[in-house]
Amino acid sequence: MNFSSKILEESVNALSSLPGVGKKSALRLALHLVQDNTKKAAKISAALIRLSTDIRKCTVCCNISDHDICNICSNPARSGKSVICIVETARDVMAIEDTNQFKGKYHVLGGVISPLEGIGPSDLSIELLVERIKEEKTEEVIMAISPTIEGETTIYYISKLLKDMDIKVSVIARGVSFGGDLEYADELTLGRSIVSRIPYNVQS
Amino acid sequence: MNFSSKILEESVNALSSLPGVGKKSALRLALHLVQDNTKKAAKISAALIRLSTDIRKCTVCCNISDHDICNICSNPARSGKSVICIVETARDVMAIEDTNQFKGKYHVLGGVISPLEGIGPSDLSIELLVERIKEEKTEEVIMAISPTIEGETTIYYISKLLKDMDIKVSVIARGVSFGGDLEYADELTLGRSIVSRIPYNVQS
Repeated sequence: MNFSSKILEESVNALSSLPGVGKKSALRLALHLVQDNTKKAAKISAALIRLSTDIRKCTVCCNISDHDICNICSNPARSGKSVICIVETARDVMAIEDTNQFKGKYHVLGGVISPLEGIGPSDLSIELLVERIKEEKTEEVIMAISPTIEGETTIYYISKLLKDMDIKVSVIARGVSFGGDLEYADELTLGRSIVSRIPYNVQS
Repeated sequence: MNFSSKILEESVNALSSLPGVGKKSALRLALHLVQDNTKKAAKISAALIRLSTDIRKCTVCCNISDHDICNICSNPARSGKSVICIVETARDVMAIEDTNQFKGKYHVLGGVISPLEGIGPSDLSIELLVERIKEEKTEEVIMAISPTIEGETTIYYISKLLKDMDIKVSVIARGVSFGGDLEYADELTLGRSIVSRIPYNVQS
């Protein structure tokens, strides 16, 4: 690309370092910002600065937070039942929160055990989780971890650690999606959803 | 979306103000920046600040530039033949520069005449163009403007203005794309490319 401006080129290079943003998309975004007269570039710039400096990890659950302890961990309404939902990333917390189906607390592992990528248990917040469970006298943990090979390994590893503690361990249900077409469900999912079929009660 | 962090939410709102970036993509980008430890957010932020403050329009051709006069206008090697290529946007200049087929100067209109969008000739840099042509004693202008209704209107308007001046006016060739399949070319393009067929000389 022949850039008429060095500044434009730098912006395109910076923007195209984002995942899923190629050079052409980055150029489109940069040119949009140059032509924009609503100070959008300044607003985005300020937001990104705060993102890189002011955001931290919750010291309890490792979720993304504006404070040392996140909104969920510091919310007294959520500490009643003593259930911890274990997830991989902060994105998963948001996804579960959006369902409005869980009123306990979370624990963000920061990934899954993956020997191929060199991620071992010590790279995740598993130690902190175990300490936390002892301290909070947690009654149940729900593993809301992706049903991949790495995810299953992580679930196995954690549940082995928790085996001798008096704690209920569950995993989120797997099966065909609501609104999904059986024809397009993969064989493993479909097969497992038959094996782990659930009783159907006609509601009167 | 339930954000665990106000700062994250602000960044997502800021990023999703970009064209083609929805809330979910913005969230993915923001979370990537939070987890990134290469100071990518700071780099992008700095680049965007410069984009909004340091970039200006070339006073001669209205192209995007780091200086008052752009690299192309200030390049003595490009002022010899006195040909001006008229384009809609700075993006078009880059596209033509990438072809390496044009060695003259440009003039960026800043859009096309579009009564529907309320863009009249006075909103574009047409007046500046006419002055420039007189001053630089331009011999030829090439209209590299999209062959849309608005584009054709703009071409017609400008060529009428230049009618009484001793200047050659041309438009870029329209026809089927190289590598394009005739089957998929639209009727108008295909029809016109037959009407304006060009002699084919066998090279010996």
